Amino acid sequence: MSAPLILISNDDGIQSPGLRALCEALLPLGEVVVMAPEVERSAVGHAITISDPLRVTEVDLKLDGVTAYACSGTPADCVKLAVLSILPQRPDLVVSGINHGSNTGVNVIYSGTVSAATEGAILGIPSLAVSLDYRGSGNLEPSKIIARRIAAGVLETGLPTGTLLNVNIPDLPAEQLPPGWQEGHGYDLTVHGKSDWQDHFDRRVDPQDRVYYWLTGQRREIEEESNTDEETLKAGRVSITPLHFDLTDHRAREALASWELFKPA
Amino acid sequence: MSAPLILISNDDGIQSPGLRALCEALLPLGEVVVMAPEVERSAVGHAITISDPLRVTEVDLKLDGVTAYACSGTPADCVKLAVLSILPQRPDLVVSGINHGSNTGVNVIYSGTVSAATEGAILGIPSLAVSLDYRGSGNLEPSKIIARRIAAGVLETGLPTGTLLNVNIPDLPAEQLPPGWQEGHGYDLTVHGKSDWQDHFDRRVDPQDRVYYWLTGQRREIEEESNTDEETLKAGRVSITPLHFDLTDHRAREALASWELFKPA
Repeated sequence: MSAPLILISNDDGIQSPGLRALCEALLPLGEVVVMAPEVERSAVGHAITISDPLRVTEVDLKLDGVTAYACSGTPADCVKLAVLSILPQRPDLVVSGINHGSNTGVNVIYSGTVSAATEGAILGIPSLAVSLDYRGSGNLEPSKIIARRIAAGVLETGLPTGTLLNVNIPDLPAEQLPPGWQEGHGYDLTVHGKSDWQDHFDRRVDPQDRVYYWLTGQRREIEEESNTDEETLKAGRVSITPLHFDLTDHRAREALASWELFKPA
Repeated sequence: MSAPLILISNDDGIQSPGLRALCEALLPLGEVVVMAPEVERSAVGHAITISDPLRVTEVDLKLDGVTAYACSGTPADCVKLAVLSILPQRPDLVVSGINHGSNTGVNVIYSGTVSAATEGAILGIPSLAVSLDYRGSGNLEPSKIIARRIAAGVLETGLPTGTLLNVNIPDLPAEQLPPGWQEGHGYDLTVHGKSDWQDHFDRRVDPQDRVYYWLTGQRREIEEESNTDEETLKAGRVSITPLHFDLTDHRAREALASWELFKPA
């Protein structure tokens, strides 16, 4: 059997240290091809480009054995284009990251990093997103080991169709990470939490006296469940949340069933 | 009690006929304010703008009683900015649409129309997205009545926190719509389906001999469940799907629980 083909993308752009670290981490597992946005594309959600052409440029990342392309599109575009048009065969795994900053709670909805993995899952390929909860040190070495352990597990076992894994890693020195992290044990199987942002817009005036608005905000924790992504990360543990893109709110369906709107005519 | 305040947005842009139709439809229910993208922003998913300023311009839609603003951002930006900075008070309802084309199956993930309603739900406001499965005639009159009926129902009953409604309306002459549609009965409470796109990229060469790629594809129906959004729409019925943005794949959680990665160290 030939080595697995691993597609790597991100939303921080082709030149990001996290992307480089992810390549180094996964090279021992198979053949690595990168297709990443040519510039940073954070908070683009699951945007795809339909009204403009996409451009692709080969980039030399100076990493032996890695072929890399920069794309003018979004993270979801990168994965779609690589899988459908660029790669010689269907990849065995899509990995997005390592993102500079966590992707938990409502951030998951806005995240370009997660959207690259979502696109992989939509295409039926086992996919994961990896984010480091950057808080200053940003040492990527532990994250590389953790990402490799999880990727190896997914390559071995596969994932249910339509499921992707959202991995969040605390920014801690190796000795403060939970026991077993280097051997690939003791990670937490979490749920997607509800922590969000207390957003507001700065109203400012430009040099031409025109008003503009700039989004800003503080993280807010609203956790009704235990075992959430954000809570696990804050406890200094590695969070792995299985996500899907079936958005049906089944609980609400029951509540709504008695509405007039759904009465037979 | 004062009239409800209704915020309208979309992804087809401030000048779209569907937006105008929605304003006309909802004016009898309360005060209507529009904040919509200044240009078309389809397939932007839940993108928000964090690295650029947002601009807002008041626009005269020539509709008595409607205040309207065009925004330089995405649909999600429009709703966030209107609620947090522009509106005099918190709206009672956010309605996005009427979209030119259905938003069912995997399209829901890419949809800017749905993302405007998702942003409303994230902000804790009852929200709905309305799309017409445009197939030629595009007569918006039945959709106006249906949108008003559903909006009135939501204003009266509210929605569970975190739930939004995704409404899809077939493009049929009035007499072919299901019985009761004018009175607000006989709509279908559906689930988010799995129909997707058989995507491919056209590889082309520009006048400067540089390669570019353009996304194209055909709709593909993959329905494992009955009662899906797409199937209901194709049967000529009005589909209302309650969606949420808790993305946890609970079924996968059970399957993954026995993985080595989650064993205690």
